[in-house]
Amino acid sequence: MIDVPTLVEQAREGRPRAVARLISLVEGASPQLREVMAALAPLSGKAYVVGLTGSPGVGKSTSTSALVTAYRRLGKRVGVLAVDPSSPFSGGALLGDRVRMQEHATDPEVFIRSMATRGHLGGLAWSAPQAIRVLDAAGCDVILVETVGVGQSEVEIAAQADTTVVLLAPGMGDGIQAAKAGILEIGDVYVVNKADRDGADATARELNHMLGLGEARQAGDWRPPIVKTVAAKQEGIDEVVEALEKHLAWMAGNGELAARRVRRAAQEVEAIAVTALRQRFGDVHGDKHLDALARRVADGELDPYAAADQLIAAVTG
Amino acid sequence: MIDVPTLVEQAREGRPRAVARLISLVEGASPQLREVMAALAPLSGKAYVVGLTGSPGVGKSTSTSALVTAYRRLGKRVGVLAVDPSSPFSGGALLGDRVRMQEHATDPEVFIRSMATRGHLGGLAWSAPQAIRVLDAAGCDVILVETVGVGQSEVEIAAQADTTVVLLAPGMGDGIQAAKAGILEIGDVYVVNKADRDGADATARELNHMLGLGEARQAGDWRPPIVKTVAAKQEGIDEVVEALEKHLAWMAGNGELAARRVRRAAQEVEAIAVTALRQRFGDVHGDKHLDALARRVADGELDPYAAADQLIAAVTG
Repeated sequence: MIDVPTLVEQAREGRPRAVARLISLVEGASPQLREVMAALAPLSGKAYVVGLTGSPGVGKSTSTSALVTAYRRLGKRVGVLAVDPSSPFSGGALLGDRVRMQEHATDPEVFIRSMATRGHLGGLAWSAPQAIRVLDAAGCDVILVETVGVGQSEVEIAAQADTTVVLLAPGMGDGIQAAKAGILEIGDVYVVNKADRDGADATARELNHMLGLGEARQAGDWRPPIVKTVAAKQEGIDEVVEALEKHLAWMAGNGELAARRVRRAAQEVEAIAVTALRQRFGDVHGDKHLDALARRVADGELDPYAAADQLIAAVTG
Repeated sequence: MIDVPTLVEQAREGRPRAVARLISLVEGASPQLREVMAALAPLSGKAYVVGLTGSPGVGKSTSTSALVTAYRRLGKRVGVLAVDPSSPFSGGALLGDRVRMQEHATDPEVFIRSMATRGHLGGLAWSAPQAIRVLDAAGCDVILVETVGVGQSEVEIAAQADTTVVLLAPGMGDGIQAAKAGILEIGDVYVVNKADRDGADATARELNHMLGLGEARQAGDWRPPIVKTVAAKQEGIDEVVEALEKHLAWMAGNGELAARRVRRAAQEVEAIAVTALRQRFGDVHGDKHLDALARRVADGELDPYAAADQLIAAVTG
C-alpha cells in the first residue's frame, strides 16, 4: 500500500516524483484514488487549465512547448498533461515527439506527464480531471492539457479545460474536415500555426468565415481570436498567452469560469458513479447476470430494454 | 404516435420506407424504441454483420459498394449502415461520397441507410445494434456497417460486427499511424485497396510484418488474411467475400460467432441501462442534485468519489 498522506504532502511541496506517482495512480485507476482525491480536494481549484487540440501535424507538441517557455518567462509554474486516448488497446502512450518537451525536462517549475487512458470510453471524463487535480495541488499556475491522437476524444479533452485552444495549420485539409472533427464549436482561442508557410492567411480567412466572426454578436459575448504563430520559432506565442489571459479575465468576470468548473466536476462525478454502477452490473450474481441476460437478447428471447430493466432492478433493488 | 406493429410488419416484408423510418427512430432515440425492439427481438439474429473500418481515403465507401455488388450477384439481400460518429455537434451525417452507393439505390434487395450518432459518447453501443436489428428483421442476409469519420469510434463499430474488415491503401501513412488508430488489433480480414498503385506490395508486406502473421500460431486460431483489391474496378472483391465466408464458417464452427453476439448484446444492454441510470441522475431532486454536488466538488468542499457515492445512493436508495 502507498502512504497516501505522505505522497500528497510531497506533491504539495512540488516534488516531481510524488506528482508523477500520483498521476500513475490515476492512470492505473488505483483503488487508492478515492483516498488521494479526498486529500487533494481542498488543495485544488487554483490552476488555470488550458486545453490544446487540433489534427495531427498542426504542431500541437511544439506549440505546447512554446507556451511552456512563454509562461516560464512570466514566472509561472507550469504543468503539462499529454493525454493519449486514441488507442484503447496498446495500453501505452505513443509519444513519439515528446522529445520537443525535453528542453523543459530539467526545469523544477515544469511538470510534464503523459497519460494513456487505456480501456473503456468515457475514461477521460474522470481521469483527466483527477490528473489535473494532482498538478493543481502541486502548485501549478497553468496546466496545459494536450491530446495525442485523433478523433472525438479531443472534444472530451476540451470539456476538461477552462479555455480551449484549437490549432490549425495551412494546407491541413479543407473546412469539411475541420467541421467533421467538431473542433469549430469548441475553440475559445484559435491558432494558425506554421504561419510562415503558404496559405496561412487563406486558412485564417476561411476560419474567420466558418466561425462567423464577421457576424454581429451580443455585447459581452466572447469573440474567439485567431492568432498566427510559428511555434518552432516562438513567434506569436506571447500573443496566444495574451489571448488566454483575456479569455480567463472575461470568464472570471461573468461567472463563466465557475460555471465551466462546475460542469467539469459534474461530468467527473457522473463518470465515477457510472463506473461504479457498471462494476455493480458485473458483480450482480457473481458476474453472470449481465452475461445471462445478454445470451437471451442474442437469442431473440428478450429485448434489450427489458434486459436493461432487469439489470437495473438487480443493481438498485 | 407511430403505429409500431404495422411499421414492424412492413419492415419485415422488406418495405424500404418502413425500414428507413425504424432506423430514424433509432437515430432520434425515440421513446418508442422500446416497443420497436420488443417486436423485433424474435425476428433477428439471422444476418451476417460485417464492419468496415479504415482511415479516410482508403476507399471504404467504394469497397462497401463493391461488396454490395458481389453479394447481390450471389443473390443475397444486403443492408448497408453508414455510421457517422465523428461529430457530436453537427447532428447530421456528412456523407459526401454516398454518391458511390447510388448504383444500388434502385435495387429493392439493397437497403442503404446512413445514421448520425449525435450526442454523448457510447451512443453507438446501443444505436448500432438497434439499427442492425432493424435491417436483420427486414431479411438482410448480409449487413455492411461502415464508419464515416475517424478515431476511436471505429473500434466501437468493430465491436458491433461479426467480422471486422480493416482497409488500408498504399502510401496512407506509416505503421505508427495504424498502430495509433488501434486498428491492427481488431481486423479479422485485412484489405489493401487501391492495389494498382505504387507501394501496394510494400503496404501488404509491412502489414504482414506488423500483424506478426509470420509467427507460429496455435492450431485452430484464425489467421487474418490480407487481400489486395481495386474496389473501383471490382478487382479482388470476390476474394474478400471468400475470406468473409471462411471467417464466418470458422466462427460458426467453434462457437466464436455466438460468443461475439452475446458480447454485443451485453454491450447493448449495459449501454441502455447506463443511459437510463444517467437519466435518473438528472431526475433526482428535480434535476439539481448532480449540479449541487458538482458545485461542492468544484469548490473543493467535497471529493468526487464522495459525491458519486451520494449520487448513487440517491438513485438506488
